Parts: sequence; C-alpha cells; structure tokens
Amino acid sequence: MTDTVKYVLDEKDIPRFWYNIVADLPTPPPPVLHPGTHQPVGPDDLAPIFPMAVIEQEVSTEREIEIPEPVRDIYRQWRPSPLYRARRLEKMLDTPARIYYKYEGVSPAGSHKPNTAIAQAFYNKQEGIKRITTETGAGQWGSALSIAGAFFGLEIEVFMVKVSFQQKPYRRSFMETFGAKCIASPSELTASGRAVLAEHPDSTGSLGIAISEAVERAVERDDTKYALGSVLNHVMLHQTVIGQEAIRQFDLADDYPDVVIAPTGGGSNFAGITFPFLGEQLRGGKSIELIAVEPSACPTLTRGQYAYDFGDTAHLTPLVKMHTLGSTYVPPGFHAGGLRYHGMAPLVSMVTELGLVKPRAYHQVQCFEAGLQFAKAEGIIPAPEANHGVRAAIDEALRCKEEGVSRAILFNLCGHGNFDMQAYRDFLDGKLMDLEYDEGEIAMALAGLPSVA
Amino acid sequence: MTDTVKYVLDEKDIPRFWYNIVADLPTPPPPVLHPGTHQPVGPDDLAPIFPMAVIEQEVSTEREIEIPEPVRDIYRQWRPSPLYRARRLEKMLDTPARIYYKYEGVSPAGSHKPNTAIAQAFYNKQEGIKRITTETGAGQWGSALSIAGAFFGLEIEVFMVKVSFQQKPYRRSFMETFGAKCIASPSELTASGRAVLAEHPDSTGSLGIAISEAVERAVERDDTKYALGSVLNHVMLHQTVIGQEAIRQFDLADDYPDVVIAPTGGGSNFAGITFPFLGEQLRGGKSIELIAVEPSACPTLTRGQYAYDFGDTAHLTPLVKMHTLGSTYVPPGFHAGGLRYHGMAPLVSMVTELGLVKPRAYHQVQCFEAGLQFAKAEGIIPAPEANHGVRAAIDEALRCKEEGVSRAILFNLCGHGNFDMQAYRDFLDGKLMDLEYDEGEIAMALAGLPSVA
Repeated sequence: MTDTVKYVLDEKDIPRFWYNIVADLPTPPPPVLHPGTHQPVGPDDLAPIFPMAVIEQEVSTEREIEIPEPVRDIYRQWRPSPLYRARRLEKMLDTPARIYYKYEGVSPAGSHKPNTAIAQAFYNKQEGIKRITTETGAGQWGSALSIAGAFFGLEIEVFMVKVSFQQKPYRRSFMETFGAKCIASPSELTASGRAVLAEHPDSTGSLGIAISEAVERAVERDDTKYALGSVLNHVMLHQTVIGQEAIRQFDLADDYPDVVIAPTGGGSNFAGITFPFLGEQLRGGKSIELIAVEPSACPTLTRGQYAYDFGDTAHLTPLVKMHTLGSTYVPPGFHAGGLRYHGMAPLVSMVTELGLVKPRAYHQVQCFEAGLQFAKAEGIIPAPEANHGVRAAIDEALRCKEEGVSRAILFNLCGHGNFDMQAYRDFLDGKLMDLEYDEGEIAMALAGLPSVA
Repeated sequence: MTDTVKYVLDEKDIPRFWYNIVADLPTPPPPVLHPGTHQPVGPDDLAPIFPMAVIEQEVSTEREIEIPEPVRDIYRQWRPSPLYRARRLEKMLDTPARIYYKYEGVSPAGSHKPNTAIAQAFYNKQEGIKRITTETGAGQWGSALSIAGAFFGLEIEVFMVKVSFQQKPYRRSFMETFGAKCIASPSELTASGRAVLAEHPDSTGSLGIAISEAVERAVERDDTKYALGSVLNHVMLHQTVIGQEAIRQFDLADDYPDVVIAPTGGGSNFAGITFPFLGEQLRGGKSIELIAVEPSACPTLTRGQYAYDFGDTAHLTPLVKMHTLGSTYVPPGFHAGGLRYHGMAPLVSMVTELGLVKPRAYHQVQCFEAGLQFAKAEGIIPAPEANHGVRAAIDEALRCKEEGVSRAILFNLCGHGNFDMQAYRDFLDGKLMDLEYDEGEIAMALAGLPSVA
C-alpha cells in the first residue's frame, strides 16, 4: 500500500462527550469581565445573548460534557470524519515524514463549523428561541449555522464581513438556499454598523464589526439570541470531537503525532484538533509540538498583546483575556476571511502563554502555493484558511527531509475551497499579492485597550 | 432514531469487480459501426482514441471485470460512499415512503465521475500515454479527469461547452488548480470547432461539438488518447460500484428498493446505480421500477428516436444504436449542463427499449424547487443535474402519501451543487426560466440520421 490511506472509525466511535481542557489546566482561566464594571460576569449578564445551557458550558470546569443524543444523531451524517495518511503528498515531497490530515470538509457546510453550529442551534431550540443572529467572515460559519437553522426550524440572520461578501457572492446564495438572511457588514441595520459607516463609508468590514451588529440585533429582541462561531470556551469545547476522533484513528494507524498543526483565526479549529492531544500531555502523556498558524497580515498570536479586550468593535461584548491586536484594528482584506479577527480564543491564548503552543505566521501567496501542491497530491482543494495549516505541514515535512528524520505530522484540513475559487483564480493568474498589516494602526488599536486592574 | 441515518460499509466492502450488465441481457447489444463502412468496428478502429484495456472492456461479455488494485486504492479515499435514509425529508413531506439516497458528492470532484476517471487514467498511464483530451458539460467530468490526471502524472486537455464555461467560471479554475487545460468549445483550436464557429459564431456549444474537438485533438497526436465521461459501455461498467455498494447497504438497512431513480444525461450515473439492481432482477431477483429522469429541454429518452447515430456533431465517432435527438441538435442552455446531450448510453437505451426502464422528463424550475426542499431537510445542496432525481423521488414519495402506501425509494444524489450557486442565485431571485426545445430543430436533426441497413 503506497497510496493515500484513510483511517475510518465506526459511527459508535463518534465521541459521547466533549472534552473540556479547563479541567486539566494548571490554573483556572482568567475570568470574563463585565464591560462596564470590570467585575467577573455572571450567567445573568450573558443571558440576553446566549441560551443557559451554553452559558453553563462556557464556565464549566468538568472534564467531560455529554453530547446530547439529537446532536450526535446529526453528527452521524458526516462524522466520524476521515483521517488520511497523505502518502501521495509524502512521495511528492520525497520526505521521510509521516503526514496525516484530519478532513473536516466532509461536513455539509464543507468545514468543521457544523460541530458547534448544530450544538448551539439545538440548545437555542430547546430553550424556545426563534431566531439566531451571527457574524461570518469567509462564510463558513454562516453557512454552517444556516444549515443548523434549517434542521431545527430556527431563523438565521448572518452579518457577513463586507470584503468577503463581495469576494464570495456564492456564500450568500448558499446561506439563502437554506433560508437564512445574509447582510453585508457594516450595514445600516444597526447603530454599530451606522457608526462605522459614518466614519468610514468604504469600510470593508471586520469580524469585530460584524459581531457588534449581530449582538445588537440579538439583544433588542426577546425571541432572539446570538451565536459565535469561534473564540468562546463552549465553541472550543464542541470542536473537540475532531481531536478525540483523531486520537482513536492514530490508534488504528498504530502511530502518534509528534507535531499537530492547525490554522488559527478565532482558534476553534486549532483547539478542536489539539486540545484532546494536549489534555493527554497535561495528564502525563506524550509531549508533542503544537503549531498555531496565522496570517502574517493579522498576526494576533505572534504580534498581539495578551490583555483584556473586547470581542467586538462597538464594545458590546464582555472583556476576555486574550491575544489581541486591539478591537478597533481592521485587518487588510486577504482571502482567508475566516482568519481576519483581532483577537484569539482565551483558551488558545492561555495555553500559548503557558508555552504549550508555538505560533507561526505566513503570508498568503506561500499558503496558496502549498494549497496547490496539496491539491495535486491529494485531490482536495483546501480553503484559504486551511492552506495556512498545509503550508506549515509541508514545511515541517521538508525539515524532516533535511534532517533525515521521520516524524508524524498531523494537521487539520478544516475545510474545502469550493467557494474560494476566485482566490485560486487570482493565484493562478499571478494576481494574488501578500498584504501587510499596518504597524501604526495596530499600535493605535492597542493603545485603546481597556485598562483593567 | 428519527433522524437521517447513514449506512456505512467497511473499506473491504468496496467492490472488487465492476458489474457488466451485457452478461445478463436477453440478447447481445447491437454492434458499434464504423462511420464510413457501416460495418462493425474492431479494436484497431478504436485504438487511436482509447487504450486497449478500455477497448476490451467496451466489448466484453464477462459478468465481472476485476478492478485493478491501484484503482481500488484511490477509490478508498471516498468509497464506499454513504447511503442515507432521508428521515428528515420524509418528515418534511409527511410521507409513509422510505426515501434513501446514495451520495456520490463525497468524491474529491464532488460527483460520481471519478469512479471512471480514475480507471481510465490508470489504463492510459499503463499503456504509456502522456495526455488525455476530453469534453465536459457542467464541468463535473472535466474536474474528475483533471484530478485523475494529477494523480497519475498525465496532461489533461478539457473542451468545456461554452455556455457552461461562461455560467461556471470556477469550474475552469478548479480544473486548472489540478494542472489541466480548459478550453471553451467550440474553439478555434480544431477543424470541428472552426467549422461550427464559421456557421454559428455565437454558438453556445454542445457536448456533441466538444466531443468532436476532443477526439480530433487526440487522433492527431500519438502520445494522446481521448476519454469520455459517459455514454460508452466501459463507463457504465466503472460506475457500477455505486449500485453494488447500495445493494450491500440495503442489506444493512434490512430493506430493498421498490423504485430506483437517477438523472440521465449520457446515462452513466443512471447505469451506475440501477444496473446492479437490474442484474439481480434479470437473474430472477425482485422486480423493481427504474425511473430515468431527463430534462424536458433535452428529452432524449422520452422524445428521441432509437436509431444508429454519431456520438458527436462533426461525425468523427463510430455509430452507436441509442436514443437520440440527432447529433446536430443543440439543446437550449439550461443549468444542468451535464444533461445537455443529444444521445444516450446504448446500454441504457437498450434496457429502456426492453421496457425495463420508465423515462420521465422535468423542467428545470420544478427541479430547483425540489433541490431547495431537499437542501433544507438534508443539508446538502444538489447539483442541477441531481435535482432531476430529487424531483422524481419527492414526487414518488408524495404519491406514496396519496395512496397511503410505504415504498422504498432510492435515488442517486450524483453530485453537490457547490459550483452551481449562480443557478441557485437565479432561482432564488425568481430569474430561472423553463426552457423549451425546438420541435423543428429536433425534426431536422433526426432527418439527418445516417441510414444504416
């Protein structure tokens, strides 16, 4: 067998619990603070935006949280997702490395996002909610929540970052096919959107602005809540089905990763694949290298500050301690729209601060080069976000070749690029450029961080 | 369990043989004739366009033909494909019917096409061929062959029907990402293309024209062969992995279909799912209803003539006996580009003539309505071609409701619609129109049929 190998699990191996890394951390995570009082928030503070079951998960310290049976029933449609040994890619690179990828693009939305979208829609439905508002960058999250809304009979209202709305018109059509509403952000629908437009009429938007708009639309209606596709603890939690499955699949392969790699935007795809492995390490298991890959144009982990900050631009959200470029920072409009976020999941930030994660940043052209190489070897066109992980995996595999060592490299191929062909078109035509962040703008945004005692 | 159910097979259950229905037919299929002499063609006549292994399969009467191990190794990446019991759709329709769908969209190309693309690329590589030319309608087949070419190190040259080339620019980017060349047909590259353009400078193209161009480009170079994505016996053969898997999956479900439904363009997706079931029936098994669904605007089976005709417009191919609208007929530019073919697979035509298949035609708007309903229930956006099967399956399920009977309905969901969002956009905006064929043009094309003794 020299061809690409698939490691398949049975449906009964779909995890029955989400794994909560908080139980294994050396210290509790810093508390979430009220934006006004700077005191730790309680469940009542979060109740206008999230259902109670989600709030409980957000602050839980239990190691295992049971996955409701109706959520597992839906997971069954595409889970367990396959783990592949990329033998054709290994051969192309002529590397002694053993390259594995977990493929989340098999979900109906084409990414890992339904793992949490289905769960969040379920809890909202259970608590009698009629409508969920949200933001989306590249459109992966909005697509996933639109599908979940169709399954549970919930209205979905998606604020899509304007640059992505324009770059990827078919993502809007995708969401609308499932009955969702999709609005380019910043919009005239909200005070937050109007404020941004008043100052910057040509704003290309940002995840921070879109979050403000979605939160605003949720709090103004009793039958409406808000859902976030990344960053928060409960989202990291829901995504751990990825890593838990990967651990079992490595058993089947009779192997164990030396390195685990994933792109990081808000952090959920990274947490999803790495936290279960990190948990094993924290409980005395094998020590492995975790590489978080981010875009050079939005270098949250590699250039940001670890501080309390807002999750959104209009400062409607609570304060969380995370790596941030400042909540007012608007990253340039590169193609990996899912990674255009000023902040980072507090849990991913915390384990990075603890020295358990090595962050790394890449420019987009080198990521697309890696994506094309991967596609030719493995037959799958990765999403621009996923290309960041592919780049790092190929670089690690080439380092193995240089050093003449065989290491097991696992990366999370978090989504396919079927809706990102304009980016590939630009790349094929030599029109894709690397974009630089603005040092001054980041400094200004960081200067505006709230001062928390 | 009231949710959608997935019936999963183990990798070892990927079929080891392709099933050849010719072995079970009451009479041998009519021979393929030389376009000049009208005498049955021999292997030497086909050698300039196909590798010898494929030619042998084209005329084989063996019931089982072994799948080469390297082809099965690649199939393993996505096969066995899932069979779903669409319980959410059943609930939405409030029907007593048991609706099942086999989902081929899990392949890297997003359709059933790689089942034969991988096999054909393998045989060409084995015989020392460097380059394969082909045609594509909606782009599904060209995409599949592009991936197969990347895997086996073969150059791929795709003539894409112009209307689809314009409707689906991202299909071209998809093929080019895998290193293939994609040319809008009719083109200036070939005599066949130039002849069409001289007469109809605004020609939107057709599969018949694109086939002429691809065949012409293959015969003019020794290191180049041609590959067809449907119609021919060896393509039907390769697609039978679909139905063979479905039979085993129905065993798991402890059920057996009463009706099997699939869209028909060239016929390979229909043959792929139905022939293994039909074979069981012909060998004395349960008699089931087979429904072939075609577009009303290109009604090959429901309005065409069963006669010898050319596979292409420029009359470069041999003559095959099939249902045809005449090789010069150019169907209107509806969105299911994969179904815009004047002819039909000779084997599908033959079993239809034998009364074993019920053909049915639908207009595109009602197909998109069905596709939207299916997406909301099952989370998958079908390709426009696949929507024809979805429409028929929903209609059969509603008939069960009317009649108060529970029947098992199986349809082949042959591909996802991720590259067809412009069609969904038009549908959502109320801009999608039903297109009619031109009675006079068909009559004219049929009047031009070759007279075969």
